[in-house]
Amino acid sequence: MSLELVKQFIINKNNFVIATHYNPDADTIGSGLALYQALMSINKKAIVINKDKTPKDCQFMPFINEVYNIDILRELNFKREALIVVDCNSIKRISQETHHQALLSNLPSCVIDHHEISDVFGDIRWIEPPIASTTMMIYKLIKSLDIEITKDIAICLYAGLCIDTGNFRHENTSTESLKIASDLVSKGIKPSKIYRELFESWSSSKFKLFKEVIKGIEEQNDIAIMTVTKDMLRDTGCDDDDAGNFVDFPKRTVYIKVSVLIKEISEDKYRISMRSKNGINVAAVASQYNGGGHKNAAGCTIEGKIDDIKKDLFKKISDIIASPPTLKVVENS
Amino acid sequence: MSLELVKQFIINKNNFVIATHYNPDADTIGSGLALYQALMSINKKAIVINKDKTPKDCQFMPFINEVYNIDILRELNFKREALIVVDCNSIKRISQETHHQALLSNLPSCVIDHHEISDVFGDIRWIEPPIASTTMMIYKLIKSLDIEITKDIAICLYAGLCIDTGNFRHENTSTESLKIASDLVSKGIKPSKIYRELFESWSSSKFKLFKEVIKGIEEQNDIAIMTVTKDMLRDTGCDDDDAGNFVDFPKRTVYIKVSVLIKEISEDKYRISMRSKNGINVAAVASQYNGGGHKNAAGCTIEGKIDDIKKDLFKKISDIIASPPTLKVVENS
Repeated sequence: MSLELVKQFIINKNNFVIATHYNPDADTIGSGLALYQALMSINKKAIVINKDKTPKDCQFMPFINEVYNIDILRELNFKREALIVVDCNSIKRISQETHHQALLSNLPSCVIDHHEISDVFGDIRWIEPPIASTTMMIYKLIKSLDIEITKDIAICLYAGLCIDTGNFRHENTSTESLKIASDLVSKGIKPSKIYRELFESWSSSKFKLFKEVIKGIEEQNDIAIMTVTKDMLRDTGCDDDDAGNFVDFPKRTVYIKVSVLIKEISEDKYRISMRSKNGINVAAVASQYNGGGHKNAAGCTIEGKIDDIKKDLFKKISDIIASPPTLKVVENS
Repeated sequence: MSLELVKQFIINKNNFVIATHYNPDADTIGSGLALYQALMSINKKAIVINKDKTPKDCQFMPFINEVYNIDILRELNFKREALIVVDCNSIKRISQETHHQALLSNLPSCVIDHHEISDVFGDIRWIEPPIASTTMMIYKLIKSLDIEITKDIAICLYAGLCIDTGNFRHENTSTESLKIASDLVSKGIKPSKIYRELFESWSSSKFKLFKEVIKGIEEQNDIAIMTVTKDMLRDTGCDDDDAGNFVDFPKRTVYIKVSVLIKEISEDKYRISMRSKNGINVAAVASQYNGGGHKNAAGCTIEGKIDDIKKDLFKKISDIIASPPTLKVVENS
């Protein structure tokens, strides 16, 4: 139903601004670039915009240089006829700056997203949270428009599917996601190459940082806490986002139930990321510090001395682990 | 053609010994158990045998307790009518012991394997090296026999596919492997759970060992060398095979081209595992020490002092990296 409305929206218009979300990832960029190519192939005009820098792991995507900073809309002679938002469903997730929002908010708009609804933005809204990636939705859209999925489009679509399912290891991996992946590979793409671009492109600096972080890991009651300080980033030559996925690492053990990454933001101020398994609710921990998230992935910001913060986190998480779950998680083999 | 012969072999006989290869993995065990269940479901009798202990990461498979040590054939009142060999194509790969081989070598035999041909063993031989896993071949066989793929059969088949494609990240990941994976997931299995069993079940000891190994990693000329001594295994409480896949770890960086794991076997005697990317031929290094393997995964045994061995390996591998490749590896995106 919503797909049909999106299809009509595209058929009836000719000049599209495709907006990705801030702090872009391979699903929003892959969705944007796949849709861009599809629209261009049927002689529509489109521009893909983002607010923040396109991350390094997306640089291998075809047409990556066709993703422009949102500010270009002010200068560019591009007829802004319609807006398509991919991989988020709020204008605030495109940019939190009101002057950016003003560039887009008056356009007829269409939202395509697989995240939980966070806003009412968009004239047409196709939002399906159970779907593993927004690129899967773009795949269906392109198919429904009878547009050929070229190899270059397939690379962008596969990248989003790959990043959002953790290369088919997360719980959102479904019959449908694997079936679409299979069809995309039939277009001549190399899954192993895309995997390496997304997951195996650590720089020498990042590997150094990883070794430091692993060395300093602290464990108590099946909880692992890792710390990244500003000094560690400087000493290893890392960017602020290089430690991003380290928090997942201890989850490969059978016994670590909750993994925590503490990242120094400024003096006595830390960003906390938490991951859990077996249905342990880390969002309940985050909310005690005015943070939020999902049951198995949550975050918050804490001010204080690092040693006190660690002690407090070990205590609060231990309490959550010890408390009976509010909802039994049934998982069939 | 060969599939048809295998099918006839199964239809015409009733009592099967299904043999897995020594040092079994999830592909041989998954193939054996899936075939076992399929045969039982059409009222045939079967027994799955292996020479070595079934590894920990296979313990989640349905009917895992129906895998017996090969020696049971001497005691058991089981009519040995026919032999089906899964995931290897030589009787020596079932067991190197002649008294074990004698239990099987006189039986009418059928080989189902995806490895390169290493022997002429087997009356019927269905060997297809391009296929990613033997469980994919068992999937086709079960389908061709019109046997229902139950959820329990699907778990075993998916496990083999998952381990042999590195959960769809290796170069053997194809349109067909993803399509079969999709169909298996439609039987109600949980890909994320199988992934965790196979790849995220590190013990506390193994995680300790990993931290020690990573701490001691040595790098030169884009080569990483990791070392596991008997003392390290003892101090962390690890089994001999716990360090198995550590050698793949440095490959997640962009700059490490060859990764080496040196494992102490006995005093001044070491087992060397090498992994490479970008077509660098580590088999050519291994052969200089009378070892062997594939271009991107090879091994050998070296006697000598550890420091000399490292120095020699850094030198020989650097030479291989510096030498022009004999065959250009063409990889499309």
